[in-house]
Amino acid sequence: MLNKLPVKRHYFDWAASAPCETPRLCAPFGNPSSLHSEGRAAKQSLEDARGHCAVALNVPPEKLFFTSGGTESNSIALFSVLTRKSSGRIISSLTEHSSVREGMASIEKMGKPVGRIAVDSSGRVNAQTLTKALAQYSDARFISVMSVNNETGAVTDIPSLRDVIRNQSAGNAPVHFHCDLVQAIGKIPVNIMDWDIDSASISAHKIGGPRGIGLLYLRRPLEIFYSGGGQEKGIRGGTENTGGAAGLACCLEKYSLSKTKEQITNDSDEQYARAKTRWKRLISGLCGMKRCVLIPAERAECEDQFSPYILQAAFSYVPGEVMARALDDLGFAVSTGSACSSSSPQRPVLLAMGVSEKLQMEGIRISQGWSTTEEEIDLLLEAITEVLKFL
Amino acid sequence: MLNKLPVKRHYFDWAASAPCETPRLCAPFGNPSSLHSEGRAAKQSLEDARGHCAVALNVPPEKLFFTSGGTESNSIALFSVLTRKSSGRIISSLTEHSSVREGMASIEKMGKPVGRIAVDSSGRVNAQTLTKALAQYSDARFISVMSVNNETGAVTDIPSLRDVIRNQSAGNAPVHFHCDLVQAIGKIPVNIMDWDIDSASISAHKIGGPRGIGLLYLRRPLEIFYSGGGQEKGIRGGTENTGGAAGLACCLEKYSLSKTKEQITNDSDEQYARAKTRWKRLISGLCGMKRCVLIPAERAECEDQFSPYILQAAFSYVPGEVMARALDDLGFAVSTGSACSSSSPQRPVLLAMGVSEKLQMEGIRISQGWSTTEEEIDLLLEAITEVLKFL
Repeated sequence: MLNKLPVKRHYFDWAASAPCETPRLCAPFGNPSSLHSEGRAAKQSLEDARGHCAVALNVPPEKLFFTSGGTESNSIALFSVLTRKSSGRIISSLTEHSSVREGMASIEKMGKPVGRIAVDSSGRVNAQTLTKALAQYSDARFISVMSVNNETGAVTDIPSLRDVIRNQSAGNAPVHFHCDLVQAIGKIPVNIMDWDIDSASISAHKIGGPRGIGLLYLRRPLEIFYSGGGQEKGIRGGTENTGGAAGLACCLEKYSLSKTKEQITNDSDEQYARAKTRWKRLISGLCGMKRCVLIPAERAECEDQFSPYILQAAFSYVPGEVMARALDDLGFAVSTGSACSSSSPQRPVLLAMGVSEKLQMEGIRISQGWSTTEEEIDLLLEAITEVLKFL
Repeated sequence: MLNKLPVKRHYFDWAASAPCETPRLCAPFGNPSSLHSEGRAAKQSLEDARGHCAVALNVPPEKLFFTSGGTESNSIALFSVLTRKSSGRIISSLTEHSSVREGMASIEKMGKPVGRIAVDSSGRVNAQTLTKALAQYSDARFISVMSVNNETGAVTDIPSLRDVIRNQSAGNAPVHFHCDLVQAIGKIPVNIMDWDIDSASISAHKIGGPRGIGLLYLRRPLEIFYSGGGQEKGIRGGTENTGGAAGLACCLEKYSLSKTKEQITNDSDEQYARAKTRWKRLISGLCGMKRCVLIPAERAECEDQFSPYILQAAFSYVPGEVMARALDDLGFAVSTGSACSSSSPQRPVLLAMGVSEKLQMEGIRISQGWSTTEEEIDLLLEAITEVLKFL
């Protein structure tokens, strides 16, 4: 079975990184902070890219700041609490991306109070768990919750959380609401302005853009922990990555589902519809396998609460790592959990959801992209069936 | 004089950013943290790049960590002091790059003790000023000093500082010695191992590499303030920029003057010699102008203590900004100070050197690269002469 000859590859790990689609973009080479012609041309190119990103995300351009990626965007927002003199607490869920989890740990080490928001069995913060957390931590002034979970695809109802925060903080000190949009942008409809969030993180390489570039959306200017050379209005130091910014703008224009109704092209709409159809096919196939359990199990009944780009499933008696390796040998790239945590055997997201230790060990993540085909879904299902025969 | 027609451009701001020379490098698209074939291929490409950088810098590959650039490399090293339980102090000179200066400010805000090392009239920390600083701050446990100043080109004698540190800390707690090599690598001979430094920062885009990639050298593992997703052995979080790493490796191989005697190609040697010849020509031309003063004035007499790639000069009665704009109109890109601080009218580096307010205002920075020609030097001198006739 484990044919070692070169096989046609089928990539099902788009949540880890997408193939880069942006051709080499000829951004001017000057330093955008320089005042000469070369610098001004670079600055213009950077601002053009920002403008295109703003249109695609339907936010004002002056609220977007280029960073080196999702991890840095998250950390810049989080570490702003270190600059606060007040004793306000920062709280986040246990199912956040490791960049947020580690950020919380760093903040705690600095002696700032932190707190955790419980999640339901789908791994989501919901209005109830957030209300409870805010009752427990009345000093919460910064809340970080992700939109789409990177391991399960669970979609958090951000507007409902915003309502809870609005009600709870009425009359109290304002609460900053940060949202990690890394797995949401380009994948599900996002409306930053309507969602009324204070800050958000976006990464280019998850949506076909280049490595090393991302965005931080800030509704209002934020006091930043470290502003380096003062670029990006003091929000993010370091010479601006003009080529990366242009690449990110391209991909946002192509894939973002954040546009206003008038701007949505049939393309984005159709891509989303097709992704849902393919994912339905995958889920239906997996549910037909006796040894397969979706994580969370209730997913099959409420697929509209999950991203049609990410799925977590477990196969009885097959450790996730073994399944991933066997599929890799057959030409299919899937992962066990988040790529960022692949060196650790622990699955903190699944643990927080109350998933049994056995299932945690057996879980694999399957994630698709815009170019994934129905045929590839069928081939993947066949390959899994094949592996299960032998294991 | 200020001809607005398109003119041939002559770029003299290489210290801000160099033209990118790396063709689009086809790095595998997988996430290096993923365990499947695509991930392993990306990991292999990343490790190959690290290996090539290591050879070019003459250090072991496992001591090199990819970052998003010089600013981040400096901040990772500096912020490691935030993780220390001891009350050890961090000290640095007042002529450091703004990424270090701002980092010191962030550290101070966190309540950690900081201190400044005085510089001589050339803007350098020397054995005397460091000895004095260490006498004043006996609790200094982290020292950050740059190798080549980004505004004046002054070269610090790093080995002599290492000797001072070694003598002073004998028997005491170890002192971490960090060195910003951003303007040194590819420009002057650097020997990280011989210099016996504990950490060092390198940026790709200053040596013809892509934006958004740099290196942090760490002699020993360091406890890091924020490890994000745990990539780069927990030193720098965020999906690894494989294409950027390959580009950086290319440029280091081409330009680094850090190689062992046997590895030095005639190319690097010749480039360095030619840069010195061109700079001598520029300095001699400038010294012939009555209204020109080099900053520091003593430069002409000790050119071997300066990088042949950066020069600061002032022209009587012509504000630096005016000179830079006039030269820009004639086709020459020069800057006033560091690009990273171009939005600020202050010149903290020149101030720390004791340069008069008048000269601070009049200073411009001229910086060359490998492709600069003697003819361009002559044209620049002519252009300056031309501008001075009218201003």
